Amino acid sequence: MSRIVTVGAAQLGPIALAESRAQVVERMIAHLRTAKARGCDLVVFPELALTTFFPRWFMAEQEKIDAFFEREMPGPDTRPLFDEAKRLGLAFCLGYAELTEEAGRTRHFNTAILVDKQGEIVGKYRKIHLPGHAEHEPWRAFQHLEKRYFETGNLGFPVFEALGGRFGMCICNDRRWPETYRVMGLQNVEMVLLGYNTPVHNPPAPEHDRLGWHHNQLVMQAGAYQNATWVVGVAKAGNEEGVPMIGGTQIIAPTGETVAIAVTDQDELVTAACDLDLGLTFKRSVFDFARHREPQHYGLIVETKGPVETGAADAQPGRRTPAAAK
Amino acid sequence: MSRIVTVGAAQLGPIALAESRAQVVERMIAHLRTAKARGCDLVVFPELALTTFFPRWFMAEQEKIDAFFEREMPGPDTRPLFDEAKRLGLAFCLGYAELTEEAGRTRHFNTAILVDKQGEIVGKYRKIHLPGHAEHEPWRAFQHLEKRYFETGNLGFPVFEALGGRFGMCICNDRRWPETYRVMGLQNVEMVLLGYNTPVHNPPAPEHDRLGWHHNQLVMQAGAYQNATWVVGVAKAGNEEGVPMIGGTQIIAPTGETVAIAVTDQDELVTAACDLDLGLTFKRSVFDFARHREPQHYGLIVETKGPVETGAADAQPGRRTPAAAK
Repeated sequence: MSRIVTVGAAQLGPIALAESRAQVVERMIAHLRTAKARGCDLVVFPELALTTFFPRWFMAEQEKIDAFFEREMPGPDTRPLFDEAKRLGLAFCLGYAELTEEAGRTRHFNTAILVDKQGEIVGKYRKIHLPGHAEHEPWRAFQHLEKRYFETGNLGFPVFEALGGRFGMCICNDRRWPETYRVMGLQNVEMVLLGYNTPVHNPPAPEHDRLGWHHNQLVMQAGAYQNATWVVGVAKAGNEEGVPMIGGTQIIAPTGETVAIAVTDQDELVTAACDLDLGLTFKRSVFDFARHREPQHYGLIVETKGPVETGAADAQPGRRTPAAAK
Repeated sequence: MSRIVTVGAAQLGPIALAESRAQVVERMIAHLRTAKARGCDLVVFPELALTTFFPRWFMAEQEKIDAFFEREMPGPDTRPLFDEAKRLGLAFCLGYAELTEEAGRTRHFNTAILVDKQGEIVGKYRKIHLPGHAEHEPWRAFQHLEKRYFETGNLGFPVFEALGGRFGMCICNDRRWPETYRVMGLQNVEMVLLGYNTPVHNPPAPEHDRLGWHHNQLVMQAGAYQNATWVVGVAKAGNEEGVPMIGGTQIIAPTGETVAIAVTDQDELVTAACDLDLGLTFKRSVFDFARHREPQHYGLIVETKGPVETGAADAQPGRRTPAAAK
C-alpha cells in the first residue's frame, strides 16, 4: 500500500521592491489553481515569499526593516491565500518574515509554516542557519544581512504529522548543513519542505559562482538519500532588483534522484506524485539507523561550534590526533 | 602560496581467492612505480586491499577467517611494499584486516593506515560503520558479514599531520554517513582517504542496484563540499569471485567536483595535483563553522542511535513534535 502525496513546487520569479503583498498573493493563488488542476495535495512556496529579498539592502531605521515583516499570519494580505487554499482543499508551506512578541520582547525570525487542507497552521519552523553578515559591508555588490535582521530560530528542527505523513521544514542555507536533515531524519521525517533565495554571486567567494547549481542539487540530493526522505526545494528565481538568483526548483526522491525540476527563472509549478513509503527500503537496509549509526563517535558534532585543534572529544586508546608533523 | 599534494588513487581490479598476498603486493608495487613516474606524493589503495573481499562468505571456523587477517604490519608479505614506497619516496594509504591483541584479548578490525615517505606509519583508522549482518543468511546470493568478522573501530575519526597537510581516513560504508566527514571537518581535515568494496547488487534492496554509482559519487562529493576537503575514494573493482563491484575510483575537490575518475574495472591509477589550500575560501565563507554552525540544535545526532518517536532532545518553547495527526 502506497501513500502518495502529490506536491507542487511553486517557484516564484523575481518580486520587485515596489510589488505589494496583495500582488504577490495573486501570483501565489494562480499557482494554487494550477496545482489543483494537476492533482496536487500540497503546494510549497519559497523562503520569504511575500516580498522581495530585503536582506540585500542595509537599512538603518528599524521601521523600514519591520515593514517587510508579518505581525499576524494570516493577516489582511495573506487571508486570501489561506481562503483559496482551503476552498481548493490544498495544504501549503509558506516562508515569510515573522515579527512577534515573545518572552517580553519583539523578535524577528525567518519562518516557514505548514498549513493543512482545512486551513489550520499545523507546523512552524524558524530558520536556524542564518547566512551572511551582521554589519554593513559597502564593498559588496549587494548585502546579505540575515544575521542582522533575524534571530537564530528557537524551535529546533521539528517534524509534524500531516497529510498522512511526517513533514519537516528548513530554509535556504539550512539545506547546506547535513545536521539539518539528520535531526529530522532521526525523527523519521518523510518529506522536507524548503524554500530558498540564492544569488548566483557570492561576494566573499566569487570564484565559486559557477558552482551554485551543482551545490544546490548536491546538498539536497545527499540530504534526501542519507535520510531516506523526499526533499522539495523551491526557489525564488530570476533577476530580482538587479541580483540574479540560481533558481533550480526541484523535487528529490529518497533515492537521491531529482524527479521534477524547473526550467525557467519565472513563476513555474513543477509537480510530482511522491510515495511516502519509497524511503522504507533504505530505512530498513543501508540506512537502518538503529543498526548502523555509531553516535559514540560523533561527539565533536555537538561539543564544538568551530573547528578544534585537538581531537579531545574522543579519548579512545590509540588516538593520535594531532600527530606530530612529519 | 599553494600546498600541492599529487595523489594517485590506485584502483585494484578483482583479487581472486586463490591469489596470494605476494601476488597482490606485486600489483600494488606496479601502481607505486606508475605513480612515481606521474609525479605522485601519495598513493591510496582500497579497503582490504591484500585479499579478496572475504566477508562475502560465511565461514564457521575462526582459523579460516583469521587467515585473511594481518598479525603484523608490515609483515613478511607486505614488507616489499613498504620498502619500495620508501625507496621511491612515496607515502601511501593501505586498507587491510587487522588482528591484534588488545585489552587482553584477540581483536579484529577493518583498518587503514597512512605511511609517510620515510616508511613510518603515521596514522591508523579502524572502520566504524560496519555494514551488513552478523548471522549467516543463506537466502542471499552472497553474504556481507562485516558485522560478524570485525569489531566496531575504537579510534574515532582522527586526523593526522603529514605531507604538509592534515589527513583523515575512513572506509567504505563510512562514506555514506555525513557524521564521518563532519567529525574530521571539525578537526580541519584537508584530505580524506578512503577505500571501498561495493557490490553492484545489495540483496536486501535490489531495486536500488541501478543507483550504486550515483550514490557513491553523491555522498563523497557532498562530504567534500560540506567540509571543504579533498576526498580520495578508491575502489576494488570488477567481477571478484562472481560478484561485480561498482568501481568508480575518483578524486574529489573541496568544490564538490570530481577532478579525476577511473574508466575501467581493472588495476588503474588516476592522479590529480591537489592544492590543500583550495578549501580555504569555503572555510572562510559559507562553511566558516565557527560563525555559522548551531550545535545547540544538533543534540539528537548524539543522543540517539536509532530514530526517536518524539523530538525530546530539543525542549525549546513552541516545539510541536510530534503534532497530533490531522
